[in-house]
Amino acid sequence: MGKRIYNFNAGPAALPLPVLEEIRDNFLDYKGSGMSIIEASHRSKWFDDVINDAVDRTKRLLGLGDNFDVLFIQGGASLQFCMIPMNLTIEDKPVDYINTGTWSTKAIKEAQIQGKDVRVLASSEDKDFYYIPKDFQVNEDASYLHFTSNNTIKGTQWAKFPESGDVPLICDMSSDFMSRPFDANPFGMIYAGAQKNIGPSGSAMVLLRKDMLDRVPDNIPTMLKYSTFAEKNSMFNTPSCFVIYTTQLVLKWLEETIGGLKEMERMNKEKAKVLYDFIDRSDFYRGTAANDSRSLMNVTFRLPDEDLEKRFVDEALKEGMGGLKGHRSLGGCRASIYNATGMEAIKALVEFMAEFEKREG
Amino acid sequence: MGKRIYNFNAGPAALPLPVLEEIRDNFLDYKGSGMSIIEASHRSKWFDDVINDAVDRTKRLLGLGDNFDVLFIQGGASLQFCMIPMNLTIEDKPVDYINTGTWSTKAIKEAQIQGKDVRVLASSEDKDFYYIPKDFQVNEDASYLHFTSNNTIKGTQWAKFPESGDVPLICDMSSDFMSRPFDANPFGMIYAGAQKNIGPSGSAMVLLRKDMLDRVPDNIPTMLKYSTFAEKNSMFNTPSCFVIYTTQLVLKWLEETIGGLKEMERMNKEKAKVLYDFIDRSDFYRGTAANDSRSLMNVTFRLPDEDLEKRFVDEALKEGMGGLKGHRSLGGCRASIYNATGMEAIKALVEFMAEFEKREG
Repeated sequence: MGKRIYNFNAGPAALPLPVLEEIRDNFLDYKGSGMSIIEASHRSKWFDDVINDAVDRTKRLLGLGDNFDVLFIQGGASLQFCMIPMNLTIEDKPVDYINTGTWSTKAIKEAQIQGKDVRVLASSEDKDFYYIPKDFQVNEDASYLHFTSNNTIKGTQWAKFPESGDVPLICDMSSDFMSRPFDANPFGMIYAGAQKNIGPSGSAMVLLRKDMLDRVPDNIPTMLKYSTFAEKNSMFNTPSCFVIYTTQLVLKWLEETIGGLKEMERMNKEKAKVLYDFIDRSDFYRGTAANDSRSLMNVTFRLPDEDLEKRFVDEALKEGMGGLKGHRSLGGCRASIYNATGMEAIKALVEFMAEFEKREG
Repeated sequence: MGKRIYNFNAGPAALPLPVLEEIRDNFLDYKGSGMSIIEASHRSKWFDDVINDAVDRTKRLLGLGDNFDVLFIQGGASLQFCMIPMNLTIEDKPVDYINTGTWSTKAIKEAQIQGKDVRVLASSEDKDFYYIPKDFQVNEDASYLHFTSNNTIKGTQWAKFPESGDVPLICDMSSDFMSRPFDANPFGMIYAGAQKNIGPSGSAMVLLRKDMLDRVPDNIPTMLKYSTFAEKNSMFNTPSCFVIYTTQLVLKWLEETIGGLKEMERMNKEKAKVLYDFIDRSDFYRGTAANDSRSLMNVTFRLPDEDLEKRFVDEALKEGMGGLKGHRSLGGCRASIYNATGMEAIKALVEFMAEFEKREG
């Protein structure tokens, strides 16, 4: 094996090394079954234990009550953008959204395509999504209030979730799910593409409060109904077994090696602080998100010009630090520092940034 | 590593050992990238090469012209059951289906849910789906004619595909895709869940004739439109990277180690012949599918009684042969002998069957 890089990819992203090693070591013979986990039937005892353990760990890590179903649905967050309005709209009641960037905008668009009565309650589009909106009034007549907890592209994050009274919150938590504890009770649904903090790409995890199932219409396609997944423990059809298996191992690592979400949050805050503090002290690097809206997961910054940014990204890669290019729609630089990217990676990055500034600044 | 079993699972199923070994050996450092392929961005050169190679190999193996798009869509064949009528119905033109079992029935149901004008052109339900229908008239006014090439549960398979004139055929080829060559020209679309012959679960491969894209309505959800996948090389959102990577390696194995689909078909026919010949010579085992409709992929058979069947399955597992239980809806026994299950597995099975018959018969 060659040297592993410090991986700052925005997603698919770094996974914990012990998880990768466990997958590798068992890849040809899963627990004495004589086959790979990807060759095992999803109806087998082997896989049943995997998915049930993943569900149980999710509930324990987040302190979820039995009023939540934990579902695995293929298609990523993008398929959820259409399933949410299709399943969870109450007839004649508008659906409310807060727009904090590309992903929120896409979620809104899918509700509009279905002809729903969409209201955008608040938006940070006026400042190109570089902040999280604060002052807005929640409508009590909404079917739900949808927001995106973290914007990977602009590097913003809700520090405190909106309060919505009796209206259930629905949150796309793709890029900061399992990075910190939170109270799930105000949420009707939380969903996350797996490929940031909890696994490889190819599945979304959906936490659905059970009373939301009453809203699911009868006459929609079977594979687009939340009830189909809730009734069959996500196995109406063959699920994405490898993703669920990897997720199970990541959750085990979170619970047993890290010690839970409170500790994970402490580590994530510490990591982000080192990086933001360095950027704030520098005149060469410039953070792009509003200070009070900064993401603990995606640290976005610029250098004095685009040519320097390109060289910065290229030279960092040569020094063993990958994935520092900003989103292709935007340019600039971005360090995604999800759960699996440890403090040693942050320290190596800051050291390189200092050295690069000294040489080029 | 323990001893690997002979894996007769119906899906997820056996994969070629050299493919599994290659994944394992590169799992922590993909081609010197310093990361696992599951940690690499789907927008990276690494993954671009993977998906493009998978597409190119698919086209070469099947001799597809440039008039076909090769797409990867999450959700398995089950999501295709709803996407097909949603995308490919011509207004006011009925959609025709041939019903050869559970999977066809599910496909028909999804078209009905959407209120399409569904006609079941032929069905083998009268004999509990143990044969493939032969005498039926194709309607020239249909949007398409849908059929299932292989029924995993009952062990039947179309030896020769239906002829439909100008009406495009649509085929669920999940369980015999890439097991034999075929002429794709009469097909508007071919689709297959990956988890039988081409990879792990978590993605369907869709071959879509480009003229079918003209049928896709504007006002359906973005993630349910074939055009979304065709325009973005299956990367409108993050695809199921690990499944596509494994599929690429399986296709490479098919092309370079096996030598293509003609050779694969020869081997599959030989394997099935050994097993069916043995069953036909025995008074103890009884094949369940009609002789002229037997599947080369799923060999279904019964023993004199259910107690013997249970012991047969249990004892076979102890002898290192797994997955021989029939579908949970049906009982009996089934040996799924996809591409990756070699002749040595068949020979071991036949030897065990002979020994079990001698002892118990």
